[in-house]
Amino acid sequence: MRSERTGAFSDAVIAIAITVMVLELPKPDGPSWAALRADVPVLLAYVLSFVYLGIYWNNHHQMLAAVSRVSSSVLWANLHLLFWLTLVPFTTAWMSEQDFAAVPVAAYGIVLLMNALAYMLLQARLLHAQDGRSTLHRALGRDLKGRLSPFLYVAGILLTLVHPWLAIATYVVVAAIWLIPDARIERQLARDAEVPDASTTE
Amino acid sequence: MRSERTGAFSDAVIAIAITVMVLELPKPDGPSWAALRADVPVLLAYVLSFVYLGIYWNNHHQMLAAVSRVSSSVLWANLHLLFWLTLVPFTTAWMSEQDFAAVPVAAYGIVLLMNALAYMLLQARLLHAQDGRSTLHRALGRDLKGRLSPFLYVAGILLTLVHPWLAIATYVVVAAIWLIPDARIERQLARDAEVPDASTTE
Amino acid sequence: MRSERTGAFSDAVIAIAITVMVLELPKPDGPSWAALRADVPVLLAYVLSFVYLGIYWNNHHQMLAAVSRVSSSVLWANLHLLFWLTLVPFTTAWMSEQDFAAVPVAAYGIVLLMNALAYMLLQARLLHAQDGRSTLHRALGRDLKGRLSPFLYVAGILLTLVHPWLAIATYVVVAAIWLIPDARIERQLARDAEVPDASTTE
Amino acid sequence: MRSERTGAFSDAVIAIAITVMVLELPKPDGPSWAALRADVPVLLAYVLSFVYLGIYWNNHHQMLAAVSRVSSSVLWANLHLLFWLTLVPFTTAWMSEQDFAAVPVAAYGIVLLMNALAYMLLQARLLHAQDGRSTLHRALGRDLKGRLSPFLYVAGILLTLVHPWLAIATYVVVAAIWLIPDARIERQLARDAEVPDASTTE
Repeated sequence: MRSERTGAFSDAVIAIAITVMVLELPKPDGPSWAALRADVPVLLAYVLSFVYLGIYWNNHHQMLAAVSRVSSSVLWANLHLLFWLTLVPFTTAWMSEQDFAAVPVAAYGIVLLMNALAYMLLQARLLHAQDGRSTLHRALGRDLKGRLSPFLYVAGILLTLVHPWLAIATYVVVAAIWLIPDARIERQLARDAEVPDASTTE
Repeated sequence: MRSERTGAFSDAVIAIAITVMVLELPKPDGPSWAALRADVPVLLAYVLSFVYLGIYWNNHHQMLAAVSRVSSSVLWANLHLLFWLTLVPFTTAWMSEQDFAAVPVAAYGIVLLMNALAYMLLQARLLHAQDGRSTLHRALGRDLKGRLSPFLYVAGILLTLVHPWLAIATYVVVAAIWLIPDARIERQLARDAEVPDASTTE
Repeated sequence: MRSERTGAFSDAVIAIAITVMVLELPKPDGPSWAALRADVPVLLAYVLSFVYLGIYWNNHHQMLAAVSRVSSSVLWANLHLLFWLTLVPFTTAWMSEQDFAAVPVAAYGIVLLMNALAYMLLQARLLHAQDGRSTLHRALGRDLKGRLSPFLYVAGILLTLVHPWLAIATYVVVAAIWLIPDARIERQLARDAEVPDASTTE
Repeated sequence: MRSERTGAFSDAVIAIAITVMVLELPKPDGPSWAALRADVPVLLAYVLSFVYLGIYWNNHHQMLAAVSRVSSSVLWANLHLLFWLTLVPFTTAWMSEQDFAAVPVAAYGIVLLMNALAYMLLQARLLHAQDGRSTLHRALGRDLKGRLSPFLYVAGILLTLVHPWLAIATYVVVAAIWLIPDARIERQLARDAEVPDASTTE
């Protein structure tokens, strides 16, 4: 099976998950800047979740671009990731409605953690399906960011016991780390394009 | 007509049906784990419906991958399947709102049954359009799972008369049977790729 | 510009319009078949609108398949059609909420009429962009169904003055006429594929 | 990376943003033309936002058609544009709910302004990735419309201090200017197709 339709389906789910969050944004409760200001934390939560879904879309995009065929187990690993991505709007809305109380903020972090683990699982299934010297293999290398993030999410979740805003600060830090796009894959693709016989000479 | 746009449209409808269910998930009624716990049955109903829509997407994906052209009657058989798929969020929400009472659980099973029948109809239209020795024909073979499921759904629907959770257990069993992806088609595609002259020598 | 992305965007809008209607279906007000029965007219209105959007998707699909490039004016004619298609869920919900009273049923008919006119406009723009002996030209021929529908919609709208159900019966008749897919284009495409030099010898 | 999946994802987000607005249209509060008439300003606000999102889709479509590969920074510039596009339904709904009071109308204009700036940023990133004699470079030329719009939006925002309808009139004027599609790119694409060696002889 080719990877295009998997990419398209994932695009649709992520695009809708983003827009569902817009639907759930409470409209300011009056025609004044003060009413809008009361909405600012909720809007910032939207920005954070938008950035997270954007990061996943971006890296997903690049990962699938390095792959041409997908197996059944990859399809299911991908659906598993999409499942956790669809819960991002759910926890975003709960967290926003409950004024960023500790428990919903921890639940938000748990969903982020599950997304990270689901992404690692998908990556592992994709690597399994490729041969060891593939573009994807060489590009990922040691994958520091990927290995670090789950620990940071766990730290964030535990920090809700101290103060929820410490947890949110942690989530923002992880997003900032990932905002630096997965330049490894992009570089490797460019290198392969320049040296077409790379896979045989290396 | 080529099958790509039909696949893309089906992807969009299924992706949105999944995300509509997220929109309808009631947010926990307070900032506590207890409030989230009260939501667990509703979340599990979401998981079940997500898995069902995922199974349909997955098998639909593989079925269309074995086909290159679609006729008008295939387009309508596909729209008919999509119609029943869009009712999955509707019955999921009704069942969740009514605390898994017998009638909504039976209605949920009826929609699953109609989906199974609509899928069989689409498969039959696709086989009709292919010649008898096509990849799709040989791959489907006897199609035990496909023939068995409707009877299991009917059993589930009748079991609501005893207790709704027996019905839900039946639906979970059918999902589990199908979670094993349609390896037949995948194997046949791989076999055809290896023996390119299979269709002439067989 | 190639027509693929226009098709994909139209697919997305139509797919979402369909699913928006599911979101707006009121869930039955209790865990009984009687509660579901009270929802039946609303569900039938959903079926009718689903069939209409399906017909538009189906014919749109076939029309664009006969075209490879689109101009700016085609893009706008297409957006104009999509605008009226997005109002189908709006009038469906209004009509359902107001128990199929005369005025909302007339408004539903007006939106159907505008869709038909917008489709004719798009078709005219597409024909304008093709040369006179194109597949699309020969396929459409006299286009009886297309010319007849607007008059039937107007009849339906006027019939709301007598009784709203007469209007709805008229809309059902038009849908039935169109359910017979646009076999003309399909036949012509098949014919062109058989006689590859048709455009020069005719 | 190829630009197709970026186009498809953008299509999905814009398509959903449009349809989200339909979901938020308040259904007329009764079965009469008078009830519908009370909805007319809200419907006109929907038309305006639909036209704006249509313009962005249209120009986005043409801009990406002149480009074959996208870099990571282009992906993020595109996500940034999509972020502001998703806020169009939010400000449209707020403005409609508050009867077009000055502050929400100004907020609507600010989102339009941010969209215009985000679009310019994306265009700049795309031009940066192309070489100086590319189709896109020559097509855009001086880009008067693009340079003028932000000033008009600022004027509109300031005019809310006088009367909100003056601001809305300004937004309508900008939409009208842009409705004239980006004929420059289309012309240049046509010219390139005719003179295939244009990039070497110029």
